[in-house]
Parts: sequence; structure tokens; C-alpha cells
Amino acid sequence: MTAPDPTALGERADMMIRTLASISAEPNRLVRGFLTPEHRAAADLVGKWMRDDGLDVSEDALGTVRGHLPGDGKRRLLIGSHIDTVIEAGMFDGPLGVIVGILAAGHFAKAGRKLPFGLDVLAFGDEEGSRFPVTLSSSLAVAGHFDAARLDAKDAAGMTFSDAIAQYGKSVAEIPAAAYSRDEAAAYVEVHIEQGPVLEHRNQPLGVVTAIAGQTYVNVEFLGEAGHAGTVPMLLRRDALAGAAETVSLAERLARDTKGEVVATVGVLRIPNAAGNVIPGHVALIVDIRSGSDAARHKFVEIFKTEVQALAERRHLAVTMTDTRNVPTTPCDPKLQDGLSQAIIAVGGQPISLVSGAGHDGMAMAKLCPIAMMFVRCRGGISHNPAEYASPADMGLAAAALVRFIETAKL
Amino acid sequence: MTAPDPTALGERADMMIRTLASISAEPNRLVRGFLTPEHRAAADLVGKWMRDDGLDVSEDALGTVRGHLPGDGKRRLLIGSHIDTVIEAGMFDGPLGVIVGILAAGHFAKAGRKLPFGLDVLAFGDEEGSRFPVTLSSSLAVAGHFDAARLDAKDAAGMTFSDAIAQYGKSVAEIPAAAYSRDEAAAYVEVHIEQGPVLEHRNQPLGVVTAIAGQTYVNVEFLGEAGHAGTVPMLLRRDALAGAAETVSLAERLARDTKGEVVATVGVLRIPNAAGNVIPGHVALIVDIRSGSDAARHKFVEIFKTEVQALAERRHLAVTMTDTRNVPTTPCDPKLQDGLSQAIIAVGGQPISLVSGAGHDGMAMAKLCPIAMMFVRCRGGISHNPAEYASPADMGLAAAALVRFIETAKL
Repeated sequence: MTAPDPTALGERADMMIRTLASISAEPNRLVRGFLTPEHRAAADLVGKWMRDDGLDVSEDALGTVRGHLPGDGKRRLLIGSHIDTVIEAGMFDGPLGVIVGILAAGHFAKAGRKLPFGLDVLAFGDEEGSRFPVTLSSSLAVAGHFDAARLDAKDAAGMTFSDAIAQYGKSVAEIPAAAYSRDEAAAYVEVHIEQGPVLEHRNQPLGVVTAIAGQTYVNVEFLGEAGHAGTVPMLLRRDALAGAAETVSLAERLARDTKGEVVATVGVLRIPNAAGNVIPGHVALIVDIRSGSDAARHKFVEIFKTEVQALAERRHLAVTMTDTRNVPTTPCDPKLQDGLSQAIIAVGGQPISLVSGAGHDGMAMAKLCPIAMMFVRCRGGISHNPAEYASPADMGLAAAALVRFIETAKL
Repeated sequence: MTAPDPTALGERADMMIRTLASISAEPNRLVRGFLTPEHRAAADLVGKWMRDDGLDVSEDALGTVRGHLPGDGKRRLLIGSHIDTVIEAGMFDGPLGVIVGILAAGHFAKAGRKLPFGLDVLAFGDEEGSRFPVTLSSSLAVAGHFDAARLDAKDAAGMTFSDAIAQYGKSVAEIPAAAYSRDEAAAYVEVHIEQGPVLEHRNQPLGVVTAIAGQTYVNVEFLGEAGHAGTVPMLLRRDALAGAAETVSLAERLARDTKGEVVATVGVLRIPNAAGNVIPGHVALIVDIRSGSDAARHKFVEIFKTEVQALAERRHLAVTMTDTRNVPTTPCDPKLQDGLSQAIIAVGGQPISLVSGAGHDGMAMAKLCPIAMMFVRCRGGISHNPAEYASPADMGLAAAALVRFIETAKL
């Protein structure tokens, strides 16, 4: 078998990315929702690519496209990512992992070499959750953890998830058959753009994910006393925004103090009935806290809440804090991480270890089998945006490293 | 002439306040806009009260009701406030000053005693600016400073100010005739609820205003870089909200450091396209800065802007700062202040000197003649709210003090 040519792989990946990106619900921006006509067209294109590269193609009840290359024995290495997008998406988030998977599996199929395990390339359809108020449905079904309660979820037009499945020509009754058995699924590997600036900052094309960060959302609400901006002396104020501002600064300071272990973000801060000449009496904000370590995240949340309580008391503000999300960390398998690192070194890179701050299908797949993820540098760390970009050279290196990983994997 | 009875005056003021408050555009909240049918009804009631108390009543082209008590010579003491309201108003902001003026002038009219100057009680109609995007039109006309450009202003229904004047049965051509001559207007005195908590905090019913605060609005806009809340390390962020939060805290700290000389408020803070999992790339806020001293306000604005510039540079944020309002301080006349203080002492109070953080018709009248203001304690400092409240006892003391002030005034 000849060694893969990263340059040729990169050019092919780039062409495939651009072709897939032409399939959109809107002419001027990329929008591809779960179980929509665009999902159908993208799945057909992906299926064609898989067949052209020598894989056996099938689809499960949620439309996940599966390209299979048989190996020795029952066990399979699963390689996947998603082909649904956010609204006004970039071209790389999701498709890159599917395409690199097809290129790597196609490399072995074309070489006619039988691996000690089968390869399954999976193109999931519900990672972004931009149609229904649920997410990871496709990978949860494949992992055998699909909860039927989510079938009642409705999209913006009022259509239920279960009706959308029927409209897509599939059957809810077949969802359980999408699941792998545990002795079949040896491991899951996902290639994805980083969606952050670390690899670019470290000047490296590829990274190895140590964990998908756990996440806590703390909703903080301050109640003070509204008042006239001109008539209330500073020391008689109970300014809810002043308390909220201190909270934003506190979250930033505490996260910086962890030296990379925890990130904290206030993305939403609302002042109901805001007016320029009124001291805010009510402010609500959301703090998004993430870490690769559940212990570090829990410790952060505890210290944060204690300090918010203290500043609220000092300011004579009433405060309520509610956790609206609590997702545990998904660790990546150390042996698989090591295999990815060796493969990155083999193609000339220095593997950077980093936590994935964003969620991925790997979170669902970890319920089935050991998982690992390889990150690809993206320009400016920009994602969920038409400006999202990964270079053909970096994508080619990712495909070559994935080939190397498969060649050397001991599953 | 008998001394006025504060208790009786207070009871009468309270009854008049409540009767006037029944005139509203809406059944369940107090809304009385400039040149509306409600303005007409309120002006008719005020005119009737003036006539009943022995004053000669007239109206100018902007609907300002004038109750005149002749004195010796041409010079007049003007006493006024407004009868328009904000939307969902309290009963006291404005009407209190008109009613106390009628009660005081009526006291002299009924006693049949001729003063060394005439008394004019003025009920203005455009202090709140809640109908047209202009304010103080009535008092500016009376002061001889009405600018005809404002006649093109439109209300929410699209009607121009000049059409509203015609619909009210008045003539734009008559506006100049509303103005007093400078040798006619000896002084202007206004009684108003404090709209702040200082008198309540100091346990005193009445205060003397030293100045109506000057005001600067600084619009601050930060541009950083939007990013994924999970994927961008703390030290690689350019978080516009983190910069804005530091700015809110800075404004509060600098204002506190002035020990009462300056108040600063951020009442509006907006994050365009806010989402819980997105680092804000763009935040806009408005800082309202007020002081009784123009020098102190200008110094504050200069230090504030320098420090905002520095924090923006440290955070690698672009920042723009624009002054959207710059209103100079209106000082109150020292002799008139002294007269009010003596009158407050005479009715048993301890006159508290304080700056008016809110704007008043006195700002326009100061272009014509020396002005002074007496503040009346209001519960919780609450204003522009149905919960606004001044007690009959405090209103009675205010009317008695105003009588005393008139009796002893050397104009």
C-alpha cells in the first residue's frame, strides 16, 4: 500500500467541502437542518462519495449515512461527524470529519487491504440542534441511547420530530436498530475543526482532544431598586447593574486564576425596562462555565456562587442563582489519544493536547465505546460563521494522520 | 393677615392633587400629554381653582395657564411647575408645585393684601417631553427662548407640534407674546417633590435646591471579537462585555470618589446578537453623568474617558465614546435660596441644601430671571411611578413656607 499524499488528500477534501456547502435551504447563506430536503441531498452526495470510494452504504432510521469497509472479525472502528449545520454556517464544522473519514477509509478500500477491524464512516444529521430543541439525536441512536421522549419535540413550524422522520421516509420503529452492540463498536474517532484559536496560536495544524468539556450554566438574577439617575446619591443606591458588572468581572477573574483549567463567559445580560436615566433595579445574566475537569468546574461554581452571594449582600441586592445546565465532562480514551498523537508526529506535526470547549457527537458515542478526537486548525478560531476556514494543507494532513492512526491502531 | 395653617393647606393640597390625578388619557394609569384633551381638562380645572382663589386667569399660545395677583408696580414673582405627566405617572411630580403656588397666592388674594410685586402662578404643559421629542417648550416660551425649529417635532402618531397647537385652539403666531420682559420677571420659584431619597434619609420635610445638575451622556461602544464560549482560552479573548463591565464599575467608583459631587449611572447596556454560548464581540452602553458643578462634571468626564481608553487598550478592544448630551448646570440664586431657607426655618423645618439631579422648568426660566426651588420629601425617593407619594403634612408645610417666602421677599 502506498503512503497517502497529504497534498492530494487536502485538495480533494477542499473540493468535497465546497460541493457539500452548495447544498443549502437558502441561496445566500448555508442552512442545512436535520431531516430537511437539504439533509436528504447532502446524505445522497455523501453516500455517493462513499460508494465511489468502495464502501458499502446504508442509512438508519434517523438518516445517518453509514459507509462500511469490512475487516477481520466483528469489531469496527467508527469514524464520524455531522452534516447538519447552524443557521448561517461555515462550511467546515461537521462535514470536515465526515469527508476526512471517507478519504481515509477510501484509502484502505482502494488499496484492497483488509484491516484487523471493520471501518464505519458515519455522517450524523443532528449535532447542531438547529431544527428541533434537541441535539445529538443521531449519535445517541447509534450509541443505543436514544430516548423516545424527544420524538415529541417540535420545530419552529410546529412539526414534531416523529412526523419529520416519517416525512423523511423513515420509521420511528426502526430507531433501535440504529444502535451498535458494545462488542461490535471498538472505538469512535472524530476529526473536527478546533472552533478556537489555540492551534493557530501554537502554530500547529493538528491537535489531540483530551476531553470534551463539561458545562454548567448559572442564571444569575439581581433585584435592587430602580431609581432616577440624577436624584439618588451613589451611597443610597441598590443598582442591579453595578452588581451584575461586578459578577462579570468576577467570572473572568476566577476563570483566569485557573490558568486554563476553566473558562467562564457571560454572553447574555439583560436589563428589563432599561432607560438611560434610570438606575437598573433588575438585571439577569447567564454564566457559561466549562472545563475538561468536572472537579475543577464544580469547585469554580462553588467559589463563584459564594462570592456572588457576598457581593449581593454588600450591595443590598437580592440575588437568585439557578443552574440551568449541568453536563459532565466526556474524557477521551488515553490509548486512542496516544495513537492520534503518534499519527500526527508521523505526518510531521507536533500534537497539541487541548480540551474541546464545544460539544460534539463524541459525547453521545462515549456512552457506547472509547472515543477520541483530532482537531484541525481553523483560521482566527472562527466558527459558526461564513468566515470559518481550514486550509487544504491542514485538511490533507488530518486525512493522512487518520490513515496512519488506522494503520497502527490496536483495538 | 392671619398666619397660614399648614394642616389645612396640606389637606386642601392633597384633595387637589387627587382631583387633578383623575384626569388621564387611560382609565388605569395616569397619562397626561402636552396639548391633549387631558391637558385641556387639567388646564380648565387649574384655571377654575385660580379664579376661585381670586386670581386673574389667562392662557398663552402653548396652553400655559397663568393666575395673576396684581401688586405694586410692574415686577412680578413667578411661581410655577407643570401639569403634564410621564406615561404611568405619579400624582405629585409637577402638579404639587402648581397647587402650592395657587394656595400661596390665594392666601394673599383672600387676605386682600397688596404685595410690593405681582404674583403669577404658572401651570406649564411640556416639562416631561412625553408627547413630542422636545421638552420645556412651555417654560422656554415664557422665558422668551422658544426656538421655532421645534414646531416640526412629531408625536408617535405623526402629528407635528405646530398642528397640535392649532388643534388645541391656539396660534403659533402668538407664541412670542407668551414671553415676559426682563424688567417684569423679578424671580421664578418652583416647588417640586425631591424625586430622590435625601430628605427622607435626613428626616426633613423640605429642602432648598442649590443648582439643577448639569448632565453629560457618554455613549460608549466596545468592539472586540465574538467567539465560542467553550473554545477560546481566557487570555486569547477580546470580550466586549468584560470591558463594558469594567466600565460600569469604573463609573461607579469614580462617582463614589467625588463624595457626592457627581453621580454616574449606566442605565442602558446592550449586547447585539447576544447568546449564552458566545463571547460578546460588541457592547454599547450609556453613561449618565450629573453634577451641580460644571467643573466637577467636566473633570469626571475627562478622567472617565482616559481610564476607559486605557482599559480598552489593555483588553485589545476598539472603543468609541460620544457625548450625546451636554447640559450645563443651572445655579439657583443665593439670595432666593436664603429666603427659602429662612421660610423653611419659620415653619419649623431645617432646610437641607441639595442639588436637583433631575431637570425642571427652572432650567428654562433661568434664561429669564433668577430662580430658586424648594423640594418636598417624597416617600422612598420614588418618582415617575404610581407609588410616588408626598404626605399632606409635608405639602402643607411647603405651602406655608412659600407664603412666608413671599411675605418676606425683597425682589
